[in-house]
Amino acid sequence: MGKILRVNMSSGEIRTEAVPEKYRGLGGRGLTSKILLEEVVPTCNPLGPYNKLVIAPGMLSGTKAPSSGRISVGGKSPLTGTIKEANAGGTTAQKLASLGINAVIIEGQSVGGKFYILLISEQGAQLIPGDEFKGKGTYEVSERLRARYGNHIGLLQIGPAGEMLMANAGIANNDPEGNSSRYAGRGGLGAVMGSKGLRAIVVDTQKIMDAEIAQPEAFAEAAKKFAKILLDHPVTGQGLPNFGTNVLMNIINEAGALPTKNFRRGRFAKANEISGEKLAEVAVARGGKATHICHPGCVMRCSNIYPMPNGKVCAPIEYESAWALGAHCEIGDLDDVAMLNYICNDVGLDTIEAGGTLGILMEAGVIPWGDGKAAIKALEEVAAGSPLGRIIGNGAVFAAKAFGVTRVGAVKGQHMPAYDPRGAKGIGVTYATSTMGADHTAGYCIATNILKVGGYVDPLKKEGQVDLSRNLQIATAAIDSSGLCLFVAFAVLDNPEGLPTIVEMVNAKYGANLTVDDVISLGQQILKDEREFNTKAGFTKEADRLPDFFLEEEFEPHSTKFDITDDELDSLYNF
Amino acid sequence: MGKILRVNMSSGEIRTEAVPEKYRGLGGRGLTSKILLEEVVPTCNPLGPYNKLVIAPGMLSGTKAPSSGRISVGGKSPLTGTIKEANAGGTTAQKLASLGINAVIIEGQSVGGKFYILLISEQGAQLIPGDEFKGKGTYEVSERLRARYGNHIGLLQIGPAGEMLMANAGIANNDPEGNSSRYAGRGGLGAVMGSKGLRAIVVDTQKIMDAEIAQPEAFAEAAKKFAKILLDHPVTGQGLPNFGTNVLMNIINEAGALPTKNFRRGRFAKANEISGEKLAEVAVARGGKATHICHPGCVMRCSNIYPMPNGKVCAPIEYESAWALGAHCEIGDLDDVAMLNYICNDVGLDTIEAGGTLGILMEAGVIPWGDGKAAIKALEEVAAGSPLGRIIGNGAVFAAKAFGVTRVGAVKGQHMPAYDPRGAKGIGVTYATSTMGADHTAGYCIATNILKVGGYVDPLKKEGQVDLSRNLQIATAAIDSSGLCLFVAFAVLDNPEGLPTIVEMVNAKYGANLTVDDVISLGQQILKDEREFNTKAGFTKEADRLPDFFLEEEFEPHSTKFDITDDELDSLYNF
Repeated sequence: MGKILRVNMSSGEIRTEAVPEKYRGLGGRGLTSKILLEEVVPTCNPLGPYNKLVIAPGMLSGTKAPSSGRISVGGKSPLTGTIKEANAGGTTAQKLASLGINAVIIEGQSVGGKFYILLISEQGAQLIPGDEFKGKGTYEVSERLRARYGNHIGLLQIGPAGEMLMANAGIANNDPEGNSSRYAGRGGLGAVMGSKGLRAIVVDTQKIMDAEIAQPEAFAEAAKKFAKILLDHPVTGQGLPNFGTNVLMNIINEAGALPTKNFRRGRFAKANEISGEKLAEVAVARGGKATHICHPGCVMRCSNIYPMPNGKVCAPIEYESAWALGAHCEIGDLDDVAMLNYICNDVGLDTIEAGGTLGILMEAGVIPWGDGKAAIKALEEVAAGSPLGRIIGNGAVFAAKAFGVTRVGAVKGQHMPAYDPRGAKGIGVTYATSTMGADHTAGYCIATNILKVGGYVDPLKKEGQVDLSRNLQIATAAIDSSGLCLFVAFAVLDNPEGLPTIVEMVNAKYGANLTVDDVISLGQQILKDEREFNTKAGFTKEADRLPDFFLEEEFEPHSTKFDITDDELDSLYNF
Repeated sequence: MGKILRVNMSSGEIRTEAVPEKYRGLGGRGLTSKILLEEVVPTCNPLGPYNKLVIAPGMLSGTKAPSSGRISVGGKSPLTGTIKEANAGGTTAQKLASLGINAVIIEGQSVGGKFYILLISEQGAQLIPGDEFKGKGTYEVSERLRARYGNHIGLLQIGPAGEMLMANAGIANNDPEGNSSRYAGRGGLGAVMGSKGLRAIVVDTQKIMDAEIAQPEAFAEAAKKFAKILLDHPVTGQGLPNFGTNVLMNIINEAGALPTKNFRRGRFAKANEISGEKLAEVAVARGGKATHICHPGCVMRCSNIYPMPNGKVCAPIEYESAWALGAHCEIGDLDDVAMLNYICNDVGLDTIEAGGTLGILMEAGVIPWGDGKAAIKALEEVAAGSPLGRIIGNGAVFAAKAFGVTRVGAVKGQHMPAYDPRGAKGIGVTYATSTMGADHTAGYCIATNILKVGGYVDPLKKEGQVDLSRNLQIATAAIDSSGLCLFVAFAVLDNPEGLPTIVEMVNAKYGANLTVDDVISLGQQILKDEREFNTKAGFTKEADRLPDFFLEEEFEPHSTKFDITDDELDSLYNF
């Protein structure tokens, strides 16, 4: 019936616990947020001994459900001070789920600042000294651990940024080729892992789709139906499989919602130079791949493999990364963007926050706008741990404070991703009200504002945005628990069979009798749990706000400001 | 009847307004906090255009009331995010009050980042271009402005730290000799002034005790009585006039409440080397002064003038500065402490926060414990604006985050001053609950915990500390409004004639009929106003807490932890 692996880094003790009744049927974000609410004092220091890192595969991970290999990592965030769930692709979720592990809970702190590797296999789990990897990049560590344990391992690891407790440190999950590039990136959970003294988790098993299934035949049938639903939709069946997420660059630019030069404009003259179309062309010409799976069984294969002129390979370059490291900084050279992305992956930083931070350095005049080479040089300081590197590694709000910059597009300490809240107001509502700080995945209103998926809500008008964001935030919380990639939502929103089919898969896996309404209730409960944590941590509605300049400054090409009132924002949590 | 000078830095407009009825009789902190609550949106960016800097002499400033030359500077703090009043000695309060100015309100922001000097004289007020002083230390700017306008001027200025918007930038007020060393230091209001584009305020008048007085004879009599009350008390009549505030170094060390090596112990082996007694000896031997007034008419003359071997003069070295730059960092060389203090004064940093920050650098291993020369070198980076300088200039919590240090003795982002909350639990209550972040002056329980002034509450027991802190916080808010130096409280607490005599002076000045109860009500109202501001800014009781390690770690020589519960802390605001 599943188990929880509890690892105490203070004592070195590892316990296997049966999943308590109250957690039955939960997975992913639903489980990480519930455990955090129950076990972590919300006012604790995120980098102190009382925070916990909770890692949970989704409810459907480790099965043949298409695109179900997402892993949730939760903890109190050192970047935002809120509860946090960061969600990644890669192979580890499938392997943990196949071993019957519903969650790994990392607690306490290692003695004397020592680092360890947590090795999980079919034989059990153990902590192995890991100081030999200290200061090493994630690519090298991945290579060495794969050489030691085999190329089949699932690997979650932090880089030097996480070791140095930087608030923008992420947790990398390996893709099937071993690239440490599928990041549970946002919110600095890599620093939480670093604060525990845990450098990496190795899941040593060949199993990937061996999770227990109560009704295998019904499951297989539902999974097949779900694969067809994904393949039939233009976004999940064509757009993503052909160009990956970066197909959005030209679309969002055309919509005039591509934040450029630290949110001064909605269009970037060199957008096409860093677009998915360009990326596919260059990657293929250099022997890379325009699209690629991040875990076995994904039908959307939206990842990519981009060989760089220096012989290194960046895999993948996602849209939000290309935006942050590109348009936000007015960098229009895809090789520079790729190199910045590679450095983030190697040192262990979230790309969105890192790009946001480089933009702040440009705003401050520390490096020139659009200077990719200067940005690369600055970003290399992170691994060196120099004072500048420490500033960069702690994120955009921190860098802004360091350099006296007040124009910083962040909410609750987390930098906004690749969509201007004035050019797509629904996403602005999500940024403001998400339990996680500015986060596009928490309620991806771009789908309905711009891609016209799940209906259409005019992106430039205020009407309907709060309802849209609320509905998507609730649905997303549920999807983030399922182990399914959030991108399935494109198809699910447009196909009335989508959500019932997910419920069929869950019911078949667990022998349950859930309804679609139960899924909505689950999403609502997750948001309530997270909000309760944040309230207990000292957050009030005053934190659910965008920075003033979005309310005051019109931007090209639209003459709009963010005009959704505080009261309207506060009405989001009406359930 | 007094006027308010309103300076809009965006437009350059300067308006003189009559003091509205609702502000009549208010001064100092009572006035700055009331204006902030009425005029500043509490959620605003402290360094953005919507914050305001409010400068107000006390109710009795500009009179012959002894020790009444304190000035209050208020604004939303970039260090804490709370409302802030920082209070300083020096000559400016007396001069502003003598010109009939109850408050100066600085609003907006200068265009293009230009800096200005606000010149206030008997003829009016004007803004003068001040970019020529950009990057210059406060000593040089003081010298140049005195050369230009005369040695009689009152001068409030920021240093390069404030220009660079560093969250630990203070506002320096001149002493009679022109030393820019009487700081409204805490909470980063120098950065607020810098964000407005205001480098300095020059008050060009010879007048110092010319404020309007309704009943001059009654006033003179009460003032004379009050002077006697101060002179008769052992602390205000002997301790402070003989050795200044640093007489506390050996006393607090003896009491075992002197935080040493980042709060690891309560005694510092070299405390005597940096004590007031030692300071007096060296200062006098070098031709300085053991004690000295910070403004004309002070009977306590607790300041000092300390010539350094390099030919420069540090005036003064206060106890809290000597602690922060000394014991906290295990620096036991008074000349090193003096030089660190001098650099803080020159670049424009609060010494308590700066010392706290240097301790964090030592905790992180960036510089060695006790290495005064390395600390001086690091602190010099602030003026240079290097990445390390930016980190240091933003305070201890910021530096801790930069370097991955979790052991930082701060509340609401502000570093604790010179008293361990486990060795004097009353001050711990004040640190936790003050509207200003960790602040000793907000409710100086050391008086009753250690100096046995105003009775005695055992510093190591929890009983009585919340009541003590509440009473002192209320009384302090009122005294901070009076323009009287807080040190008068030593005498006032022990002499039943003390408070009535203050009320007599206020009544004689304003032709009012206040009672002692009215003063208590005023103090309560100020705290309520400040707390209302903070609540609207998003603060909750969760912010009224000490860092965990004070609750968990016993320290030498006392085997005590801070054991006052959250509920007990929350009971402070029961009025």
